[in-house]
Amino acid sequence: MSGNSIGKIFTVTTFGSSHGTALGAVIDGCPAGLELSTQDIQTELDKRRPGTSKITTSRNEMDQVKLVSGIFEGKTDGTPITALVYNSDMDSSAYENIKDTPRPGHGDYTWKARYDVYDYRGGGRGSGRVTIGHVIGGAVAKKLLNTLNIKVISHVTQVGTIKADPVDVNELETNINQNAVRCADLEAAERMEAEIIETKKSGDSIGGIVETVVLNPPAGLGDPIFGKLDAELAGGLMGIGSVKGVEIGLGFKSAELKGSQMNDEFLIETNTIKTRTNHSGGILGGITTGMPINIRMAVKPTPSISLTQKTVDTKSMESKDILIQGRHDPCICPRVTTVAEATVSIILADQLIRAGYIDPCKL
Amino acid sequence: MSGNSIGKIFTVTTFGSSHGTALGAVIDGCPAGLELSTQDIQTELDKRRPGTSKITTSRNEMDQVKLVSGIFEGKTDGTPITALVYNSDMDSSAYENIKDTPRPGHGDYTWKARYDVYDYRGGGRGSGRVTIGHVIGGAVAKKLLNTLNIKVISHVTQVGTIKADPVDVNELETNINQNAVRCADLEAAERMEAEIIETKKSGDSIGGIVETVVLNPPAGLGDPIFGKLDAELAGGLMGIGSVKGVEIGLGFKSAELKGSQMNDEFLIETNTIKTRTNHSGGILGGITTGMPINIRMAVKPTPSISLTQKTVDTKSMESKDILIQGRHDPCICPRVTTVAEATVSIILADQLIRAGYIDPCKL
Amino acid sequence: MSGNSIGKIFTVTTFGSSHGTALGAVIDGCPAGLELSTQDIQTELDKRRPGTSKITTSRNEMDQVKLVSGIFEGKTDGTPITALVYNSDMDSSAYENIKDTPRPGHGDYTWKARYDVYDYRGGGRGSGRVTIGHVIGGAVAKKLLNTLNIKVISHVTQVGTIKADPVDVNELETNINQNAVRCADLEAAERMEAEIIETKKSGDSIGGIVETVVLNPPAGLGDPIFGKLDAELAGGLMGIGSVKGVEIGLGFKSAELKGSQMNDEFLIETNTIKTRTNHSGGILGGITTGMPINIRMAVKPTPSISLTQKTVDTKSMESKDILIQGRHDPCICPRVTTVAEATVSIILADQLIRAGYIDPCKL
Amino acid sequence: MSGNSIGKIFTVTTFGSSHGTALGAVIDGCPAGLELSTQDIQTELDKRRPGTSKITTSRNEMDQVKLVSGIFEGKTDGTPITALVYNSDMDSSAYENIKDTPRPGHGDYTWKARYDVYDYRGGGRGSGRVTIGHVIGGAVAKKLLNTLNIKVISHVTQVGTIKADPVDVNELETNINQNAVRCADLEAAERMEAEIIETKKSGDSIGGIVETVVLNPPAGLGDPIFGKLDAELAGGLMGIGSVKGVEIGLGFKSAELKGSQMNDEFLIETNTIKTRTNHSGGILGGITTGMPINIRMAVKPTPSISLTQKTVDTKSMESKDILIQGRHDPCICPRVTTVAEATVSIILADQLIRAGYIDPCKL
Repeated sequence: MSGNSIGKIFTVTTFGSSHGTALGAVIDGCPAGLELSTQDIQTELDKRRPGTSKITTSRNEMDQVKLVSGIFEGKTDGTPITALVYNSDMDSSAYENIKDTPRPGHGDYTWKARYDVYDYRGGGRGSGRVTIGHVIGGAVAKKLLNTLNIKVISHVTQVGTIKADPVDVNELETNINQNAVRCADLEAAERMEAEIIETKKSGDSIGGIVETVVLNPPAGLGDPIFGKLDAELAGGLMGIGSVKGVEIGLGFKSAELKGSQMNDEFLIETNTIKTRTNHSGGILGGITTGMPINIRMAVKPTPSISLTQKTVDTKSMESKDILIQGRHDPCICPRVTTVAEATVSIILADQLIRAGYIDPCKL
Repeated sequence: MSGNSIGKIFTVTTFGSSHGTALGAVIDGCPAGLELSTQDIQTELDKRRPGTSKITTSRNEMDQVKLVSGIFEGKTDGTPITALVYNSDMDSSAYENIKDTPRPGHGDYTWKARYDVYDYRGGGRGSGRVTIGHVIGGAVAKKLLNTLNIKVISHVTQVGTIKADPVDVNELETNINQNAVRCADLEAAERMEAEIIETKKSGDSIGGIVETVVLNPPAGLGDPIFGKLDAELAGGLMGIGSVKGVEIGLGFKSAELKGSQMNDEFLIETNTIKTRTNHSGGILGGITTGMPINIRMAVKPTPSISLTQKTVDTKSMESKDILIQGRHDPCICPRVTTVAEATVSIILADQLIRAGYIDPCKL
Repeated sequence: MSGNSIGKIFTVTTFGSSHGTALGAVIDGCPAGLELSTQDIQTELDKRRPGTSKITTSRNEMDQVKLVSGIFEGKTDGTPITALVYNSDMDSSAYENIKDTPRPGHGDYTWKARYDVYDYRGGGRGSGRVTIGHVIGGAVAKKLLNTLNIKVISHVTQVGTIKADPVDVNELETNINQNAVRCADLEAAERMEAEIIETKKSGDSIGGIVETVVLNPPAGLGDPIFGKLDAELAGGLMGIGSVKGVEIGLGFKSAELKGSQMNDEFLIETNTIKTRTNHSGGILGGITTGMPINIRMAVKPTPSISLTQKTVDTKSMESKDILIQGRHDPCICPRVTTVAEATVSIILADQLIRAGYIDPCKL
Repeated sequence: MSGNSIGKIFTVTTFGSSHGTALGAVIDGCPAGLELSTQDIQTELDKRRPGTSKITTSRNEMDQVKLVSGIFEGKTDGTPITALVYNSDMDSSAYENIKDTPRPGHGDYTWKARYDVYDYRGGGRGSGRVTIGHVIGGAVAKKLLNTLNIKVISHVTQVGTIKADPVDVNELETNINQNAVRCADLEAAERMEAEIIETKKSGDSIGGIVETVVLNPPAGLGDPIFGKLDAELAGGLMGIGSVKGVEIGLGFKSAELKGSQMNDEFLIETNTIKTRTNHSGGILGGITTGMPINIRMAVKPTPSISLTQKTVDTKSMESKDILIQGRHDPCICPRVTTVAEATVSIILADQLIRAGYIDPCKL
């Protein structure tokens, strides 16, 4: 299985780079009979689109998606679903001067080491723009999850050192959609927004934490030992650009605890087996308990900053200063929420089919 | 690809459960010509073996490995390498009473939800004992890494709230082998050992953090976008039982930083391109820079504790108290280091072949 | 790995259906540095295009391919290569009447059984038109094979009961390109052409045999046991629509022979090990010998004929006559040669990388 | 996925070589709840065992299988099932003289070209003995097929130029078990047996054809485009050692026909859709129709013959005569029937799960 595909049955293969002709995805293994329209995908893409608020990059892309295969009479027909977005508003000039000078914190140097070539324009396929493919695949996956009432919501819980307070699950979505930061704690959202704008003015960037919750998952999802659900989610999320850590449930906090503090005791509630606490984050032994899944990603600050940095000229092998032009997000956390939702949805869709919860051929 | 296999070219498939007849692994895709002996594997298994110190479980298994295929005249011949360990010293009686009462923090309930059956004896295939397979595969992988001088070292950096100080890379291995905790900070190791013994006496368990460093990796390892090296490492490590978080480089710390603080600037040293700092943990854009890789796992406290806990009887659907008997580790971090080394080694071996650093058929 | 992808490292994922918006392929795992242009792909597609001679269907498609990702400064850059063709000249009206009446010999009934829906227009994804994806992938693969001087040539050796005489390998390509049947025996080609036209007039269709030769393969290709080269070639070719048999070397003839007649003896020629005969067709034990590979496909007559046939109405569950309209090939062998070349090329490209003959990341 | 594994969900990984310590298989992805005993596997292995009749090799192996994982209380528990057979009665001396002289018709030369080493003893992993792994996997698969009443029967239909007459499906199994050739036409079986004994006396070997029928398959099996059922069956069967051709339904005969002769018309019978004829062999468009599947393999004569042949000494690069000692089958068709059944069963089991006919986790 190639490096640009994810999934065993429900598979998403993405393609395209920042300044190439088009970006998109092919989704294979989606059962037939699922209602799917261009708008379903466009809605998700619009959430990730740049140029929509003063805390994101000003690159203006309409990102209109074209659905070119896999749909018959308004529903999936079991054949591969392909959707793509054609690039426009590409300003490659801003990247000419970094051809041989790898930008600190970016993949320029490492991709060049691997392939001996790197499409440096706009960051090539190392650019965050390639997440258009994730989001297209995630849009299809979300429709599948809807058939089982499973909801995936990602939101920002921290920017820099500003931490959001927990918010009741029932208000999560409403609050998130009310601010550009996509934080459920409206008060913290204001402080975060101010911090981001301040950071942008200073020419710098800032990191944060994105949490993804899965509501109403069935118990029994996860394919041990190497296909455990937490393993696949960790892999999928760590693979999103700029992610440097993934934790589930109490995560790194559990390292400090005793077993008597960490274990989630079982109980019966409305004739269903649940756990009294949910320190495990909804996954035990790599398989879901049926409790909400709770997983967080540490997102490093965007590498592209408008301050002078030191790098090397790989041709002359000499030290060199670099000042990055172009248009960049000071904090990518708000936009990454859409990508996190997409990635988690894709993995869940695949696991649901592998667990027999969704028929592989037809709904 | 099945859930019990990991890797695309260099593949490890493991089998066996805690109280079954045998546990082992089949390694496929290892090039021919690699010197490999039973002792190479036995050495690694001995590190993970229980019953070797007062801070681990007292179950005494000789864990003598038998190498039954894949070797010809002392070297691999390109065919699948199979090694297995036959179980002994199984005390299933201790598990009879938990047949229908899932233990909090364990996979009993979730595995039963998935398969409608769960070999509850000794924790079945949810037991840490199945990591025998990981370690067998890791032993072969390590031999491959040796041919390129790549070293993988895992050690304990935290137990509960006791944190080890950083230790110079050159003293890592020596120090680690000098104490049962496998911590490189010898002073902290003493305090950790005392804490673990205290915890055991109180009938409880305790968590910790395990760090794995990879020394001398080549640049260019990682298969973007979904096969990025950090993604595959995160997935592999999160999949080890009891792991609740994985971070690389500065990890979760990077969420609090500015770009100007996080970015690793490039420089030339002895005519090689390096980074001045290594906040990225050796991976940028999902591909190695050539700097040491540095990845940490949060290990939750062992779920099996000797204190009474609340659970349910899944047959009668009633609340029930449970008191776990049997022999259990109060802190699994020391033994998990071997499993982490094995897992990271396996993933690296696979990625090295996929990157063209090691020939797929013959050394 | 999904059903619409082929290959382990060099992977081709195809999409699109006969009357959908577009058809195409995503090629992943192609090393960087390979010169690749739109024309490279267009040339191959032109060979498979309908409406080019009186012995093929008259559907007129320009089939202009668009290359939308994976190329940088005229060469592959290691990222997924995507190319697609937008449909035009679709006449869906001809298919309205077969909505509920599966055509004998086609996949209408079986695809409906699997997915509970079937895009019946033009045969949906069961149509031969989907081989546009194969040919796009094959075009890229062929460029890779060129770097090692490996040549793949498919030609028609039989139409109905008319058999071609063997032709010297050096004249194969020249002769094949001189007639619409793509047969190397020019005299037999004339008789075949007459037979096909005759068959078309009578409203019927006719079968044939297509042979593919691989010239200058290296020894050592094939990934035993389940990835043997002959196994993968057989699977790839049998998967082309209308193929009902695959044989290699003497094929079914070997069933009648004695070992003393079948075995190819080894000998030295210009300091290279060769075989005196090549009854094995270039593959022994699933791995290439270095002798030319020789593999043949039995192609059944096109199911779509203009004669009345008996079928059923799946809605009313009653017997029904069917008369297929639309434009169809009386013999698909000539066009299938391009698809066979493409398929064999794709599998060889993948196997060459898996054998270490081509670097996985960069040429 | 590695070369020694087959399947996407129901996966079989085999290991072991002719004169190594043990041979076996790991079956992953088999749902829990299937009754499975050592005897189920032993019964299948006994059919393939040598030394059981005067028309097979006289190597006497008890081939007692040991089931070491995956079973709990007499049923599969969803974890990997591992079974192995320890070698005995190995006479490696007979192979010493062929160390550097590749045997014509065998994989000695090609495996050496690929791996730079070849365990020449008994043919190493190129030996037919490795099919022990196929048969172990097939035994588990057959139990799964039984739950859906699907039957897989392989039998010999031709030896040399002696062809069996067709036999009614209901008498197939009975007749096959009545003679050592495993041919359903009892009269032809006698002539075949005589021919084989005659051939053995003359020091030669002889080829044949093996047919596999699948009774009562459901409609809808097959994963287009690259996972079509006929494609996967062709690949699986061609991969069995000594197979040089695979055909389905009328196979190569269809090349000579007109569409009006080849097409299977649909009709209703006992309220089920069937085809009047079954020229397609039960598969259309790569997916089953529900009619019996009918697929044949051309098996070349065993390469090992007791007549002097010409080969080369790869060390001195000189021509050399070779006279193969050891104990060999004059015709492997009878024993190959068991391997064909196993291979087809494994592929069907996998496809049934991928089509949603069998739950992936639990029966």
